[in-house]
Amino acid sequence: MNAPNHPAELAALPPQREVPHTLLAALQNRFGAACSTALVVREQHGRDESPFTHVPPPAAVVFADSTADVADAIRLAAAHRVPVIPFGVGSSLEGHLLAVQGGISLDVGRMNRVLSVNAEDLTVTVQPGVTRKAVNEAVKSEGLFFPIDPGADASIGGMAATRASGTNAVRYGTMRENVLALEVVTAQGEVIRTGTRAKKSSAGYDLTRLMVGSEGTLGVMTEITLKLYPLPEAVSAATCSFPSIEAAVRTTIQIIQMGIPIARCELIDAGTVRMVNAHSKLGLREEPMLLMEFHGSPAGVQEQAELVQEIAGEFGGQAFEWATTPEERTRLWTARHNAYFAAIQSKPGCRAISTDTCVPISRLADCLLDSVAEADASGLPYFLVGHVGDGNFHFGYLIDPDSAEERATAEALNHQLVARALALQGTCTGEHGVGLHKMGFLVDETGEGAVAMMRAIKQALDPHNILNPGKIFSDRTA
Amino acid sequence: MNAPNHPAELAALPPQREVPHTLLAALQNRFGAACSTALVVREQHGRDESPFTHVPPPAAVVFADSTADVADAIRLAAAHRVPVIPFGVGSSLEGHLLAVQGGISLDVGRMNRVLSVNAEDLTVTVQPGVTRKAVNEAVKSEGLFFPIDPGADASIGGMAATRASGTNAVRYGTMRENVLALEVVTAQGEVIRTGTRAKKSSAGYDLTRLMVGSEGTLGVMTEITLKLYPLPEAVSAATCSFPSIEAAVRTTIQIIQMGIPIARCELIDAGTVRMVNAHSKLGLREEPMLLMEFHGSPAGVQEQAELVQEIAGEFGGQAFEWATTPEERTRLWTARHNAYFAAIQSKPGCRAISTDTCVPISRLADCLLDSVAEADASGLPYFLVGHVGDGNFHFGYLIDPDSAEERATAEALNHQLVARALALQGTCTGEHGVGLHKMGFLVDETGEGAVAMMRAIKQALDPHNILNPGKIFSDRTA
Repeated sequence: MNAPNHPAELAALPPQREVPHTLLAALQNRFGAACSTALVVREQHGRDESPFTHVPPPAAVVFADSTADVADAIRLAAAHRVPVIPFGVGSSLEGHLLAVQGGISLDVGRMNRVLSVNAEDLTVTVQPGVTRKAVNEAVKSEGLFFPIDPGADASIGGMAATRASGTNAVRYGTMRENVLALEVVTAQGEVIRTGTRAKKSSAGYDLTRLMVGSEGTLGVMTEITLKLYPLPEAVSAATCSFPSIEAAVRTTIQIIQMGIPIARCELIDAGTVRMVNAHSKLGLREEPMLLMEFHGSPAGVQEQAELVQEIAGEFGGQAFEWATTPEERTRLWTARHNAYFAAIQSKPGCRAISTDTCVPISRLADCLLDSVAEADASGLPYFLVGHVGDGNFHFGYLIDPDSAEERATAEALNHQLVARALALQGTCTGEHGVGLHKMGFLVDETGEGAVAMMRAIKQALDPHNILNPGKIFSDRTA
Repeated sequence: MNAPNHPAELAALPPQREVPHTLLAALQNRFGAACSTALVVREQHGRDESPFTHVPPPAAVVFADSTADVADAIRLAAAHRVPVIPFGVGSSLEGHLLAVQGGISLDVGRMNRVLSVNAEDLTVTVQPGVTRKAVNEAVKSEGLFFPIDPGADASIGGMAATRASGTNAVRYGTMRENVLALEVVTAQGEVIRTGTRAKKSSAGYDLTRLMVGSEGTLGVMTEITLKLYPLPEAVSAATCSFPSIEAAVRTTIQIIQMGIPIARCELIDAGTVRMVNAHSKLGLREEPMLLMEFHGSPAGVQEQAELVQEIAGEFGGQAFEWATTPEERTRLWTARHNAYFAAIQSKPGCRAISTDTCVPISRLADCLLDSVAEADASGLPYFLVGHVGDGNFHFGYLIDPDSAEERATAEALNHQLVARALALQGTCTGEHGVGLHKMGFLVDETGEGAVAMMRAIKQALDPHNILNPGKIFSDRTA
């Protein structure tokens, strides 16, 4: 791993592409007030939750309300070879939304309609601006739910574009497994459909899964058909405190290896529990903790819970606390989902550099424990949460964005962690995506040959490199 | 849908590409006896289980024993722009293996080593020539199994290339969900890796799933990492007879909509039960039948079985017969897996034209019942089996391959069925792939725009169109 591939490269921005006045005039003519060049609007679309703060905002923001709007915006931009950066709710952690080469932001947040709920088939079709919570609101009266839950109330479009997951993925999979079909606007402004509502298919190249995780670089999704699941008959959540992170991790490994269909299995370290307690006014024990949830029939849930208690007991797990009412469960999981914001608030003005490694479950202890030791030794404050049932965890190193030294320390920790995860046959990113921040790690992980194949696909589908350029892999055509 | 897109086009072969003697000499120099031009070997590699019998065999067969062999064979062929057609065990139903433009067959059957079993992570890495039964033999001592089970004992490479599934997909998913990582030789003869052993990843374009289902047209898989599952603590299989296909289908729909985690849910119609009885010397009731299997803890299996019996009873299901010992279960499922061969033997000399539609579960009765009526009215003998828990079923119309009339009748039935499935938001192929037979249906299903995107990807990754050309979409460059 040599420096040019790695985050340090971001210090130097690539050349900005010109956004001609003729394009801005054409966009304003077509979109009227739904095309804004106001600085405050542009700035709001020129940042995300990533630690990158030095990229100028896009030249304009187009608020699309329909597939036709998306297609027209892309066609106009394509005619001028100007970058188009899709925008959902702005919760990316990896700089996906930043206009690193200039261009326009295409905000699909107004495309927030749930188009059809097919309860009998356990599917729903939505526009990309619908958030995960809004999907769940729309389907709960049918006794259904959509399980994918990244920390933020992200848009479904953004979640699909980054192949997001969250706390339920250990049982229900990620966006990879839960997107059935798409409507996509191509770089040429053409509207295509991928997939059907059938549960499985062998009909040609899997364009659906090519688009899922392509981070807005191959097309802009305008309709997304998702799988739904019946709300489980019984749900039980529990927290369990452990004498060490290692004990919590070894409990997790055994749960997974035994094939227990646990629905959620989350680790929070002691320091992060402290932050969450302060932020959410909770009184959780400030020790390493697993948060777990069991879904099934009442008997099935009880059976799972008993097995897990037995395993946890072998590793010194204690103080099981059960939450069986929806209110108790919601409070518990809200705390978990707020860990990120709790941490950010613990150090005013800070930004988090988030890691996102994911390793085979047998390697989880090796990967995690060494990285905890390194983080502790660094002196940098951090939070640590993990979808440990999947082998995925996040350190968030809390840095002063103006401190080059803190940034360098955090990047060095991240670098060490990724190198360790790759050596253990894991990935640099379990769910956040590559964006700007992991382009070098992607090369380390998959090799130049696979990245060359990605570039060839990008070149074939977007020859003028207008869709979210400069993300995932370095941009040799700019 | 107009005729040029559809199976009738196969009557006219595309131009054969020349296989120069210099290439044959180079292959024989490199591979010695592992490169054969014997007619019997070429003919064995120039056919499959599809109804196409008029395509000349490949000019040579190379038996690869390693990734280096695959890479060298492709590089030599690429230098002469000669087609390369990967070959596993030859069980394709859709003409995937046929040398429609000439070229060489690349047999990976000798690459049949299980490279590593990672029991703790529930993964196994195999070479592409390993068959599904061989994978299960290799991992059962670890208490694990690999659930994907197409009818034939297919090679894992072939299964990945066609995005295969089978009877367990209703619970465990298809090859789409169960391939974690690949080693692939590209059209340039370069070796790349896609994916890792981590359970999930957001690291760039999903090349793994692009390769899965690409039918040998984008690369040749040389290593495949699969997910495994713990052998369930308890397994129970049952058959249940129904007064009508409709009753069996409505039972299935309700099982799925209630979210019962049934492991297998297969339909066999009365006529096919009759064929299976004759072939496998069984005494099954010759009525429409569901074959079901339940996996889980003893209590969980019992709970599922009770729920399903209750549902079946509402639709007139009767004569539940349970198979709880491994021997009884194996006999039951062997019968199901042999349905295809039982049908073929029922009409000596026949070939089967297999349908493979898959529809959303709510549309299953509509799709299936009208198609049964049409098949009955045609007078053509057929078998009917279905992975109905997934909305996927297969008619096999039994035709005399020399009878143009029977072929035309079967194709007309297939055409009507596919049109119906597409109108019901389904797919023309749930698990067999497009191959030669469904190229027109693919256009009908996904539209010219999506097929154009597939062509663009093919062109980018294989600009000289040497990897299994003329499959999936019509070949405009030949």
